[in-house]
Amino acid sequence: MKTDIQIAQEATMEPIKNVAASIGIEEEDLEFYGKYKAKLSAELWDKVKDRPNGKLVLVTAINPTPAGEGKTTVTVGLGEAMAKIGKKALIALREPSLGPCFGIKGGAAGGGYAQVVPMEDLNLHFTGDFHAITSANNLLAALLDNHIQQGNQLGIDPRQVVWKRCEDMNDRVLRNIVVGLGNKMDGMVREDHFVITVASEIMAILCLADNLADLKRRLGKIIVAYTFDGKPVTADDLQATGAMAALLKDAIKPNMIQTLEHTPALVHGGPFANIAHGCNSVQATKMALKMSDITITEAGFGADLGAEKFMDIKCRMSGLKPDAVVLVATIRALKYNGGVPKNELNEENLDALKKGIVNLEKHIENLQKFGVPVVVTLNAFSADTDAEKEFVKTFCEERDCEFAIADVWAKGGEGGVELANKVLKTLETKESHFHPLYPDEMPLKDKIETVAKEIYGADGVDYDKAALKQLAKIEELGFANVPVCMAKTQYSLSDDQTLLGRPEGFRIHVREVYVSAGAGFVVVLTGAVMTMPGLPKVPAANNIDVTDDGKITGLF
Amino acid sequence: MKTDIQIAQEATMEPIKNVAASIGIEEEDLEFYGKYKAKLSAELWDKVKDRPNGKLVLVTAINPTPAGEGKTTVTVGLGEAMAKIGKKALIALREPSLGPCFGIKGGAAGGGYAQVVPMEDLNLHFTGDFHAITSANNLLAALLDNHIQQGNQLGIDPRQVVWKRCEDMNDRVLRNIVVGLGNKMDGMVREDHFVITVASEIMAILCLADNLADLKRRLGKIIVAYTFDGKPVTADDLQATGAMAALLKDAIKPNMIQTLEHTPALVHGGPFANIAHGCNSVQATKMALKMSDITITEAGFGADLGAEKFMDIKCRMSGLKPDAVVLVATIRALKYNGGVPKNELNEENLDALKKGIVNLEKHIENLQKFGVPVVVTLNAFSADTDAEKEFVKTFCEERDCEFAIADVWAKGGEGGVELANKVLKTLETKESHFHPLYPDEMPLKDKIETVAKEIYGADGVDYDKAALKQLAKIEELGFANVPVCMAKTQYSLSDDQTLLGRPEGFRIHVREVYVSAGAGFVVVLTGAVMTMPGLPKVPAANNIDVTDDGKITGLF
Repeated sequence: MKTDIQIAQEATMEPIKNVAASIGIEEEDLEFYGKYKAKLSAELWDKVKDRPNGKLVLVTAINPTPAGEGKTTVTVGLGEAMAKIGKKALIALREPSLGPCFGIKGGAAGGGYAQVVPMEDLNLHFTGDFHAITSANNLLAALLDNHIQQGNQLGIDPRQVVWKRCEDMNDRVLRNIVVGLGNKMDGMVREDHFVITVASEIMAILCLADNLADLKRRLGKIIVAYTFDGKPVTADDLQATGAMAALLKDAIKPNMIQTLEHTPALVHGGPFANIAHGCNSVQATKMALKMSDITITEAGFGADLGAEKFMDIKCRMSGLKPDAVVLVATIRALKYNGGVPKNELNEENLDALKKGIVNLEKHIENLQKFGVPVVVTLNAFSADTDAEKEFVKTFCEERDCEFAIADVWAKGGEGGVELANKVLKTLETKESHFHPLYPDEMPLKDKIETVAKEIYGADGVDYDKAALKQLAKIEELGFANVPVCMAKTQYSLSDDQTLLGRPEGFRIHVREVYVSAGAGFVVVLTGAVMTMPGLPKVPAANNIDVTDDGKITGLF
Repeated sequence: MKTDIQIAQEATMEPIKNVAASIGIEEEDLEFYGKYKAKLSAELWDKVKDRPNGKLVLVTAINPTPAGEGKTTVTVGLGEAMAKIGKKALIALREPSLGPCFGIKGGAAGGGYAQVVPMEDLNLHFTGDFHAITSANNLLAALLDNHIQQGNQLGIDPRQVVWKRCEDMNDRVLRNIVVGLGNKMDGMVREDHFVITVASEIMAILCLADNLADLKRRLGKIIVAYTFDGKPVTADDLQATGAMAALLKDAIKPNMIQTLEHTPALVHGGPFANIAHGCNSVQATKMALKMSDITITEAGFGADLGAEKFMDIKCRMSGLKPDAVVLVATIRALKYNGGVPKNELNEENLDALKKGIVNLEKHIENLQKFGVPVVVTLNAFSADTDAEKEFVKTFCEERDCEFAIADVWAKGGEGGVELANKVLKTLETKESHFHPLYPDEMPLKDKIETVAKEIYGADGVDYDKAALKQLAKIEELGFANVPVCMAKTQYSLSDDQTLLGRPEGFRIHVREVYVSAGAGFVVVLTGAVMTMPGLPKVPAANNIDVTDDGKITGLF
């Protein structure tokens, strides 16, 4: 069987200017990065902003399992299928992170015949957006420590610096470090931390900013530290905002590439889906809606994290309104949720399927709470049996969801036509009455409780003492009206990753709370969140290579 | 008076494809980064490699002073002037480093009407080359620490890790850090250091590599640490080479931009000129020679560092042969060398000029030792008097050097025509008998002594005990036949930065020696070398901004 990178490298790409032309974007509005990648100019938005929006379809999934769900693959395949049946379709995706490519996983650009290309570029430096974010993040850190070094006029408490340095690399030894050793000219000694670039608040800001002015406004509000008096110190206080924005002036422009079938895809931004909101940029989604009949986008992790944040953070802040949601599952993952071990997933097991489908059921119910029609799709695997598929189909239809099998990994757009038709039928027959789950003015604790009870199915929420103090402080600082961004394990609806299916009778435990003031949400940590991954015993990097004529191998 | 960025932003650029076409490069051999930047494809080299070379002219300078010499400005202006008088000219320059833009100095792209553009892009992320180097550098670091964490099969001594992390930012608190704090899963605790990206050995390697295969060969030889037994551990030992090369596959392609007068410029790579060799990439220079009648290139710092390394490292390794050298001075800088304080440099002072011109004299003598004809140019300042200029002219002509005034800051190429004609005359009438200063097989200590005596004018060399041990170890490891790369203050011919003019009766003090095995030279430290700059009390970043429609301000 061919690997993803083999399929991607065998593909014949269209020059990106042709792909752009297919949806009416002229060459003058493209900023090329080689022949197959382009950024959309800032001027393009002014030209198209008064057009009516196309339809917005969010692709999300059940809780991830080791069996694999293929959410990005379905997103790409659905976009290709829409194009195949004559719709002007655009795909909006997140950019993958560089670091993890060298660790366990390979690239993240869909899979099989439902990929975006050039996949090597996308997985390596792409158009440099993440490098720009790294630079802006670390400029802010350097300016902060320099301020302390040069007299500390603002009275920054070195024990209360909350801004972390970042790097787009899996590098565990940078999780906890001491900086400033040496002598007087080498800075003030303090404990510091590196996070991976996608965990930088600047990534979330870039993805939520409407334009360059909004980006600057948000950057300026970033809280980097607290003074000895407990007052917040912001990027504006450090006069860092303009220089950071200068570093990001190109990174905020959406990137266009193509699928293997030349369907255009905007791939832009990629914030974490736990401590941040896990969606591609607002600008890419808004642009896509102006340039297409149907925009297919996705959100990170399962629907309890990604879709909830898409609705409650991204859509709330930007005014976007999803018209339908596609919920991706696999027979394998549902059986895994029903207790079947990973190596027995290829055998038919209707009992396990019935037991595990409660995970899907809960996500359907959750999504319907946002007032948006739901389509369920099974990402096809060859071992799926007719009885299993039929069971899931009936289950979904009984819950007012259209249902379709997606066989896009093996067949590309052709394998997604059934799904595309079901999505179209939904868009035509079911109106979206989208609304966020809770109003802005709800107190933070009530927001947390609402998400915990309504989405996760918890009985309630317990707080560490420190978290309660932090919540009080955050409300005192004036951030009571922002949405909450829950950081929770993606593997369970609960905050215990071992509880599969549809857990009941559990409580959510909040350990820490902090505000991402620039992004505009309050992060609620329910467990240890890894913001700097490590490399495994045998890193993928050991097998990555490039031939003497520039062809990359081993990136899969 | 207009600032450099104002002049640059008021310029009308040609689309880079037109600039490339003017020297016969077709669009299919360009990889665009926006409309005004392009990389040259790897295929282009195969098409042109059998052509005869044009002439190679190196621009260097006297020892830098606070008065400013304008070496890059003269390089750019000379290229423009060559084009103006009908020569097919190409300029080959180093890429500037991002970090220092936010510190004291502004950008580095020439000045006035002798600049390369787009200057904001060049000074910020440009085509991402430095970010790629940062990534490759830090991937190697992550793989190294991961190896130690995962059982340390190679027996790496954490006290003898010589590979440092890097970042393209002025960030003093990262000079000396402790990594790996936390618990067992957070890595092994050890002391570590960050350097600025331009100080990474990978930068030197990228600039010396002939092609992707040579890049990989060199990367693999990087020594990252020593074992408990004192044996070197290389990037190849860590199986890091392929993945690093994959990260660098585009970064090794030369970048083309243009001057304000649309003369093409290859701007590629930018290693430090103390711990590395301070020249743009071999590939850019070789490509330029195939595509032009005359290639104008430059080397870092003064001729004692930059030109010496250009000859003894870059030309030695690559087989390049300079046909002439242009030595840049200013009346102001010569008077400064003669003891005039900075605020009195605008007054005519022939005595000081006579006293200070010995610095120029020594550099002329030095350059002539390499067998290459020398042209001296004075970068014009309005306060220069006729008597002063006449004195310098006579002085140079008595030493068999053509002489010209360059007024390119104010007049662009027009101001460099006199210089261009003198360079052409030199190329036509004086043959270059280029040879490096010392042969490969000379012992390392003799090489050091040769440079110290012949170039710096020292009486001899003293070594710290540690340095002698290191030299012995390096020869034992098989690196006796590589050139030496001297790290010395750029402000004096000696290793004492307060000794201006032409110091005599001094000795060079060698404190530390190490091998950059991938780059292929032995670094000889004669003093503390700052490989991670800091930010000043009022960083330039405070004044950098970007308007809502994307125009950068405050970068000068």
